[in-house]
Amino acid sequence: MAEALRVTVWNEFIHENPARLETLKTKYRNLCFSEEHIIEATQGVVDVYPDGIHSVIAKHLRQQRFTVNTATLDEPEHGLTEAVMAETDVLIWWGHLGHDEVSDEIVERIHERVITHGMGLIVLHSGHYSKIFKKLMGTSCSLKARESGERERVWVVEPGHPIARGLDEHFDVPESEMYGELFDIPAPDTLVFVSWFEGGEVFRSGCCYNRGRGKIFYFSPGHETHPIYYQSEIQQVLTNAVEWARPF
Amino acid sequence: MAEALRVTVWNEFIHENPARLETLKTKYRNLCFSEEHIIEATQGVVDVYPDGIHSVIAKHLRQQRFTVNTATLDEPEHGLTEAVMAETDVLIWWGHLGHDEVSDEIVERIHERVITHGMGLIVLHSGHYSKIFKKLMGTSCSLKARESGERERVWVVEPGHPIARGLDEHFDVPESEMYGELFDIPAPDTLVFVSWFEGGEVFRSGCCYNRGRGKIFYFSPGHETHPIYYQSEIQQVLTNAVEWARPF
Amino acid sequence: MAEALRVTVWNEFIHENPARLETLKTKYRNLCFSEEHIIEATQGVVDVYPDGIHSVIAKHLRQQRFTVNTATLDEPEHGLTEAVMAETDVLIWWGHLGHDEVSDEIVERIHERVITHGMGLIVLHSGHYSKIFKKLMGTSCSLKARESGERERVWVVEPGHPIARGLDEHFDVPESEMYGELFDIPAPDTLVFVSWFEGGEVFRSGCCYNRGRGKIFYFSPGHETHPIYYQSEIQQVLTNAVEWARPF
Amino acid sequence: MAEALRVTVWNEFIHENPARLETLKTKYRNLCFSEEHIIEATQGVVDVYPDGIHSVIAKHLRQQRFTVNTATLDEPEHGLTEAVMAETDVLIWWGHLGHDEVSDEIVERIHERVITHGMGLIVLHSGHYSKIFKKLMGTSCSLKARESGERERVWVVEPGHPIARGLDEHFDVPESEMYGELFDIPAPDTLVFVSWFEGGEVFRSGCCYNRGRGKIFYFSPGHETHPIYYQSEIQQVLTNAVEWARPF
Repeated sequence: MAEALRVTVWNEFIHENPARLETLKTKYRNLCFSEEHIIEATQGVVDVYPDGIHSVIAKHLRQQRFTVNTATLDEPEHGLTEAVMAETDVLIWWGHLGHDEVSDEIVERIHERVITHGMGLIVLHSGHYSKIFKKLMGTSCSLKARESGERERVWVVEPGHPIARGLDEHFDVPESEMYGELFDIPAPDTLVFVSWFEGGEVFRSGCCYNRGRGKIFYFSPGHETHPIYYQSEIQQVLTNAVEWARPF
Repeated sequence: MAEALRVTVWNEFIHENPARLETLKTKYRNLCFSEEHIIEATQGVVDVYPDGIHSVIAKHLRQQRFTVNTATLDEPEHGLTEAVMAETDVLIWWGHLGHDEVSDEIVERIHERVITHGMGLIVLHSGHYSKIFKKLMGTSCSLKARESGERERVWVVEPGHPIARGLDEHFDVPESEMYGELFDIPAPDTLVFVSWFEGGEVFRSGCCYNRGRGKIFYFSPGHETHPIYYQSEIQQVLTNAVEWARPF
Repeated sequence: MAEALRVTVWNEFIHENPARLETLKTKYRNLCFSEEHIIEATQGVVDVYPDGIHSVIAKHLRQQRFTVNTATLDEPEHGLTEAVMAETDVLIWWGHLGHDEVSDEIVERIHERVITHGMGLIVLHSGHYSKIFKKLMGTSCSLKARESGERERVWVVEPGHPIARGLDEHFDVPESEMYGELFDIPAPDTLVFVSWFEGGEVFRSGCCYNRGRGKIFYFSPGHETHPIYYQSEIQQVLTNAVEWARPF
Repeated sequence: MAEALRVTVWNEFIHENPARLETLKTKYRNLCFSEEHIIEATQGVVDVYPDGIHSVIAKHLRQQRFTVNTATLDEPEHGLTEAVMAETDVLIWWGHLGHDEVSDEIVERIHERVITHGMGLIVLHSGHYSKIFKKLMGTSCSLKARESGERERVWVVEPGHPIARGLDEHFDVPESEMYGELFDIPAPDTLVFVSWFEGGEVFRSGCCYNRGRGKIFYFSPGHETHPIYYQSEIQQVLTNAVEWARPF
């Protein structure tokens, strides 16, 4: 049955999108970043993901047994029309600077697909602060962060879980943004991964939730300036998570 | 230390409040209730709770070791000013017809008290559909209901939990409104009670959650037309829940 | 991949086995059953399961996509040799009168298969008191029971879980033995079913556990004197549970 | 009510006990330790805990509001007679080399006190491999270990939990033995602490369980060669855990 699994990979597509460069710069200026830092930050992402983060994830998932669609913030209805949603078994979400630009109506639509129809939802990295994740969790979803390029070691703490399939006891992300505790989330229904960071932090980096008829997986590695979604273990996790999150 | 515990009992105070009779009738008419049913429904509640549900709960809690305040929907800021919130360790919530009248600003205030400051929150009966409970749970919080006056038997499934202190293996509510599964909530962090109903349903009737720094307890018995909050076992649960939910 | 799933259905095979009639009678006599009750009890089971409970379960599972083996108490090593275990993905366990006859060595072998190798384990009905289930749970696993032939209604409380696939919001077992709370188990990692009984009890009847690399599902309906394992919903649960419990 | 809390601190009392020096040396020799290492290892513990680990823990708890008793392996019935057990609200357990010397009868007695009578149990450090902990958990309780004297940073992941009372977001143990994942335990009912280690590991270091009527807390810091139980944050955790684990 898994052959028919239909995945939509959503990406806000701001950091890596030349068409959104001014928006990005404005946002960074409001955060008091220096011009130099802004240029560096924007160019770095384009170098790593020239066609956008969604393209890399979608390419990987197409190489598996999945039917894959992509959608981005600037499309009409953010590319998440009723028709698209009705044909999505699992939605993957990457967002960061554009959280506020996502319309409440689309958030309600996604929420309803998860809760009532059992659509799976995989929230990546900075998506912890997305409207849809915060709405589903009910907490602030705040965390500690440090843009450092330091080593992250992802440990498996539930080795029999389908999302840990094919992984060793741990794997390393050579350069990562640090996400650390306290991560203000409900205790996961199943905690699959806990990450270690060079700088002294730990993080619940792979968290499963049942909500309504739907299944949600939060997975934290994935900073836009590092080639994390090209890494084989990360891709294995995404494959596993899609299969786990599918509706029944 | 428990001596200092400060409890605020919040009640929308519509059903039992003569000043809100017209509001109540209008709402019932919109629900296509007959005039006869409306008169019966409104009078029944006043007979059981002549001073409001909050008064009965507050009286019981004052007889314990707690400092108790009450607040209702029609007060300025629903009686939940910043000053009141800052002096509340545990908030008890009873609402039904007035959910939509609760301002979003006050809901945010309560949410912030729970998540950031660790205020305990005890949500009663039809409060399952309150804005604050839905916001904290992230799900629809829908359930099956039948106004039946049938027997509810509350079973303890976690006998070592502080909220089960002093209870037998089960107790009966002689006349109750049926609340049945599927109750669309996140699986409780701890499930303390499961109810049986004469008509054939079960219900997770006592559910504990950790959210942020706060603790939340949902307890389903408490329909306004039955003298449920006068029952000793119910009062015992409320006492226990207040102590469990207190911040540290 | 599911095609290759290898299931071993284990049954103590005492109640339904003419060769064990004297053992059965002796045990019942020690429980002070009347001779009349003993004859009735023993004949009833044979009428329902002339080839043993394991045969009915195995036949159903063979009709699905599984490779199915059976094993019983009186076989050498209870039919659970190292070779059999090494080729078992999921073990189903039905036992009652013969719990004490199961050798500790075989219990250790099963435990090691679950914890270290991720073999799935599905424990049925009176298997709650088996050595292997008690060892894995760590609690007394005691419960309330009544041989009554009363109606059991099984409610789904986690509708998106794979073990609930294909089921309605509830289904009835027309004649069942009552198993009631308090069921002294660890809170399930996921609670899938809660049962209602005519006589006034509730029961956590479908409980999922992760233990080591293995997955365990306890499912309570299945008294030997009722044709419960012929019922389509029960068979659906068994199919779903085998798929869920498989190792990765 | 907390004033009456009666705590028994159990320690195998081998490492720090001159009377058990030969036993200790023999065990180390069987583990192929060099004579030099044996002398160093044994002397180090005596220097840190001249009156035994139990004395330091007991002294701290007496300074709180608790009535404290101690018991050790070499006493009759390991100091855990029926009379002692009947007057113990919370039992603290430190063991390592003597796990096998603990009689099965006493293990059964402790188990029964926890499950049936609700005695709290706090298992420390190498107690993860004690008979009583393995029996209550049902898993292998294996973990990764390295005697390293490296820094451990204990992070709070459930800040509203009573066991986290009075702690900052993290605290450091300057010199600790590394305990790392995979820790083969059931997922805790509540995970309170996750530890970070200099060498690259993480560990679920503070784990709460409800089992029967009892509450169990596992807390990993506490290697015998480091003065960990003198540290104020560690002592705060022990105080909090005793209060949390008390029966109701």
